[in-house]
Amino acid sequence: MAPSANEAGEHISRQFSQELEQVRTRMLRMGGQVEKHLADALRSVAEHDSQLAQRVIEQDSEINRLEREIDTECSLIIARRQPAAGDLRLVLAIIKAVRDLERIGDEAARIARSAMRLAEEGEDPVDLGEFHQMGDRMLAMLKQALDAFARMDAEAAALIVSEDLEADTEYHGAIRSVIAHMMQNPENVSVALIVLWAFRSLERIGDHAENISEHVAYMVIGVNVDRGDFLSRKRPGKGSGKRSGKQPGK
Amino acid sequence: MAPSANEAGEHISRQFSQELEQVRTRMLRMGGQVEKHLADALRSVAEHDSQLAQRVIEQDSEINRLEREIDTECSLIIARRQPAAGDLRLVLAIIKAVRDLERIGDEAARIARSAMRLAEEGEDPVDLGEFHQMGDRMLAMLKQALDAFARMDAEAAALIVSEDLEADTEYHGAIRSVIAHMMQNPENVSVALIVLWAFRSLERIGDHAENISEHVAYMVIGVNVDRGDFLSRKRPGKGSGKRSGKQPGK
Repeated sequence: MAPSANEAGEHISRQFSQELEQVRTRMLRMGGQVEKHLADALRSVAEHDSQLAQRVIEQDSEINRLEREIDTECSLIIARRQPAAGDLRLVLAIIKAVRDLERIGDEAARIARSAMRLAEEGEDPVDLGEFHQMGDRMLAMLKQALDAFARMDAEAAALIVSEDLEADTEYHGAIRSVIAHMMQNPENVSVALIVLWAFRSLERIGDHAENISEHVAYMVIGVNVDRGDFLSRKRPGKGSGKRSGKQPGK
Repeated sequence: MAPSANEAGEHISRQFSQELEQVRTRMLRMGGQVEKHLADALRSVAEHDSQLAQRVIEQDSEINRLEREIDTECSLIIARRQPAAGDLRLVLAIIKAVRDLERIGDEAARIARSAMRLAEEGEDPVDLGEFHQMGDRMLAMLKQALDAFARMDAEAAALIVSEDLEADTEYHGAIRSVIAHMMQNPENVSVALIVLWAFRSLERIGDHAENISEHVAYMVIGVNVDRGDFLSRKRPGKGSGKRSGKQPGK
């Protein structure tokens, strides 16, 4: 007996749900890989481990490939299934999130390159305590953003943005102390700059983690928010807190 | 007399084409604004013009707003019109391109902040000749990427990527001379860093212009390409030329 139109419809809708769930899982799995990528990059700095750094650099192309694959999969889902409302927002949020994940992977590879250069030097030019503190914080932020994505939790996502503001303050303090060191030890300028670039990469990673949390809000609430909207939702009356982009150097 | 089904269909399809054309025009117009934004930022550095720099910083929120609006419009088009094939790729490419444009706007605002700090100093810490040369090159690259988008020209887009590779070499040379200056004039470290950050912003702008050219290829050819694919298409046998992310500092 041929299936009824109703049965056929249910079958298609079940297939569609499965496809959505699959691509969502793939994105979260890619997120897990990027987390590990970043953790390894940070560890390669801490342990002067050039081999680990080399592996991080090599794995970056795998992450780039994943981004393109998941992006293509999402386009196909939109073209074939024509998802509406929440489903469409999920697919579009995944397209955006994998892009940010890929960028975090790039920055992790940059940090691994810094690790190789620092390992060549043998000794760290400055105390890297603050660097590792900030690294751990960024790793935690990325994890939280991915958890918020997995649980579709807009509240948790908003929290990440206010944490990034705190990280900003830490960052500026740390940068200032590296600059002071450079002024006192001009012969060390080029090595200290490696540390400065690595800090910059951490800052960018924070930005991308924040973007992912904005995609969660878009997916759940259905409107495009930015950092300012987020903060005014969390703390009414505080106005826009959009990243100032202020560049320390003084 | 009620319109026939055929007439109604034609009407809907005409409306859809108009909507697509409108959102495409809006994106290209946003691109023009970002171009101007960047040109003004560069001019504010060259002319020590704090007022112009201030205007660039203020206009950045307008660019952020445009990104969110065009992104929302694209989502609505996908939800309502369920575009297929080339039309869908166009809409998805616009979503991605406005994100890169917004990022270029952010970097232009960062450059404007550098301009304000340099204007406070009164005198440029180093010769900015190379900075302005690279700035002009990035501006031209952005213009080319937007032109390639407007003309849906994948060939022109591929050309941009190889140009960015040349810009990379220029960039590394310029960075090295700023670092040499810092080592010779440690009292100038913090001011020279302003220039270094501004160079970094230009480098990022190049990355985003390159991304836009990748979106053009996706839109026209229908596959996700990266820099490596692009270069191997242009120059067979040269392998992957993905940005090395090497950080100068030596």
